[in-house]
Amino acid sequence: MAKSPEEQHPVKAFGWAARDPSGVLSPFKFSRRATGDEDVKFKVLYCGICHSDLHSVKNEWGFSQYPVLPGHEIVGEVTEVGSKVKKFKVGDKVGVGCMVGSCHSCDNCANDLENYCPKFILTYNSTYYDGTPTYGGYSDILVVNEHFVVRWPENLPLDAGAPLLCAGITTYSPLKYYGLDKPGMHVGVVGLGGLGHVGVKFAKALGVKVTVISTSPSKKEEAIEHIGADSFLVSRDPDQMQAAMGTMDGIIDTVSAVHPLLPLIGLLKSHGKLVMVGAPEKPLELPVFPLLMGRKLVAGSGIGGMKETQEMIDFAAEHNITADIEVIPMDYVNTAMERLVKADVRYRFVIDVGNTLKAA
Amino acid sequence: MAKSPEEQHPVKAFGWAARDPSGVLSPFKFSRRATGDEDVKFKVLYCGICHSDLHSVKNEWGFSQYPVLPGHEIVGEVTEVGSKVKKFKVGDKVGVGCMVGSCHSCDNCANDLENYCPKFILTYNSTYYDGTPTYGGYSDILVVNEHFVVRWPENLPLDAGAPLLCAGITTYSPLKYYGLDKPGMHVGVVGLGGLGHVGVKFAKALGVKVTVISTSPSKKEEAIEHIGADSFLVSRDPDQMQAAMGTMDGIIDTVSAVHPLLPLIGLLKSHGKLVMVGAPEKPLELPVFPLLMGRKLVAGSGIGGMKETQEMIDFAAEHNITADIEVIPMDYVNTAMERLVKADVRYRFVIDVGNTLKAA
Repeated sequence: MAKSPEEQHPVKAFGWAARDPSGVLSPFKFSRRATGDEDVKFKVLYCGICHSDLHSVKNEWGFSQYPVLPGHEIVGEVTEVGSKVKKFKVGDKVGVGCMVGSCHSCDNCANDLENYCPKFILTYNSTYYDGTPTYGGYSDILVVNEHFVVRWPENLPLDAGAPLLCAGITTYSPLKYYGLDKPGMHVGVVGLGGLGHVGVKFAKALGVKVTVISTSPSKKEEAIEHIGADSFLVSRDPDQMQAAMGTMDGIIDTVSAVHPLLPLIGLLKSHGKLVMVGAPEKPLELPVFPLLMGRKLVAGSGIGGMKETQEMIDFAAEHNITADIEVIPMDYVNTAMERLVKADVRYRFVIDVGNTLKAA
Repeated sequence: MAKSPEEQHPVKAFGWAARDPSGVLSPFKFSRRATGDEDVKFKVLYCGICHSDLHSVKNEWGFSQYPVLPGHEIVGEVTEVGSKVKKFKVGDKVGVGCMVGSCHSCDNCANDLENYCPKFILTYNSTYYDGTPTYGGYSDILVVNEHFVVRWPENLPLDAGAPLLCAGITTYSPLKYYGLDKPGMHVGVVGLGGLGHVGVKFAKALGVKVTVISTSPSKKEEAIEHIGADSFLVSRDPDQMQAAMGTMDGIIDTVSAVHPLLPLIGLLKSHGKLVMVGAPEKPLELPVFPLLMGRKLVAGSGIGGMKETQEMIDFAAEHNITADIEVIPMDYVNTAMERLVKADVRYRFVIDVGNTLKAA
């Protein structure tokens, strides 16, 4: 006999969710499953606000299933572990990013690339193995299979480290996979936002020369003095762009608005790689001739596998890499979303869930 | 004192050239330089007609300088060598492809990638070191620096081998560079024309499974029975395309007309590579989300360096790879161009220059 919802999910939980495409979040009572043999249950302490959260609560990608309870940059403290859990014990600090499940049998899963498993399960706005919706980190507790839980390094701040679970791995993984991690290389980072600013930090820590490419001249001082970029290009300045033609081994493009690729392809050396990690809603214009003439490529990359996510978090701790954040209370989330629309944040909001999420 | 044109180019030559964007070719008297220390002079025997020739004589890329004397799939017999020439002697069979010069000092030249040298000199419709225009293989003789001359293998047919100097290297090089040459892989080839049909043959010889993707169902039997493809997909058949989703490690796209990339990206497995070797005049629509979801890439590749061109020709001889050709006399060239516009050739015209180019 099928289990009743109460049997499947007997654990009372509480968070903030959007109920419709207005995207307005409000308190939401729900339940989570009991801690299974391979599960880790933890109290959420901090959760970053990713731009994806904004897209999801407003159904801008068209696949939102309400209520949407967002949050996939989650850090917390373990309160219970299942009988077969090997990596964690009560009291450990842990992180959960964009995924909570995958098929564990495809080639990608076999190669520690669960993020490219066709059946991978998103941390929220997705459907779990048992057919129930997944709810994210804007909530008091999570119950997650230990395979998708990251060990949190001792010295990595819980709040400023949280965004690395999405923004960090999203930029770290392509730097490694596309070979843009060799000391002495020159890498461009397009867009100095949540993704871009940690991308700059990872690239610098890997030993490459980093140029930030942005539409906003006003970000130059910030990019160089504060974030640590080596140089800065205003993408709307034809003279600057012309002077930088053919100088970059690769570019990480974090911009999710529609924008021209031709000038970016022009910045690449022969055999250079333009890697998209932002997802514009509409197709971009791809000029083919410049790709042929320099054997260049335009590629995509989406987060990273669990093994690499752990590697990235350990690397961040070792190199003191964190996101630049503004910590907010839970009930500020709707204002934060409005400010995010206007890119009015340097560079990531992180919700202090542990101290400010008040039970209804 | 600067040399006079007669001193620079004292050797009388003869060929067929277009004089204006009508693209009509007619007999053309010109001259070539005397054989320099590092030069090889040879009598042209065969020259393939590449689709680029058609674009060039009609100025469809916008940089033609008339008269345009095309031809960059050239095979001939050496009649004279310079004092410092090491690789060739009189009587040798040789080939010249798309390039006759490069800077020899940039990173690409240093890495045997003269084809990506920013100063590389095309075999025709380009400007040589001495400031004179380059003229291609629709002519009686060529004088070329030995660095850009290929040794012709004994057993490789002169006529059916000629197109390999462009069509062959254009498809062979990306199969190697993008790692689509591992036995057991599955590679798609889009378009069964001059490039596509030799691409299929090289891919098969490298041990990969090959699927031809074409708009024309009528080419299925030909592709499989005659060219040796393993399977055939009609790109306009949604059911066939759907069934083949996610099955290919890479695709070589030879189509130079504007066409949708989304269905091709869908055919790729995760981490798959769509390599463009045709150059549509207008930008194509690039959907970014599918690239991110599968860490896929869209890349370009343009011919190949001289070292790899020699490797390709030797590989072709070893595996009995030639183009499927229709040999024509020189004075059929305008009719051939008209038929090429209609894709009315299986698969490459080759001009029997040696026997049919009649001096004026």
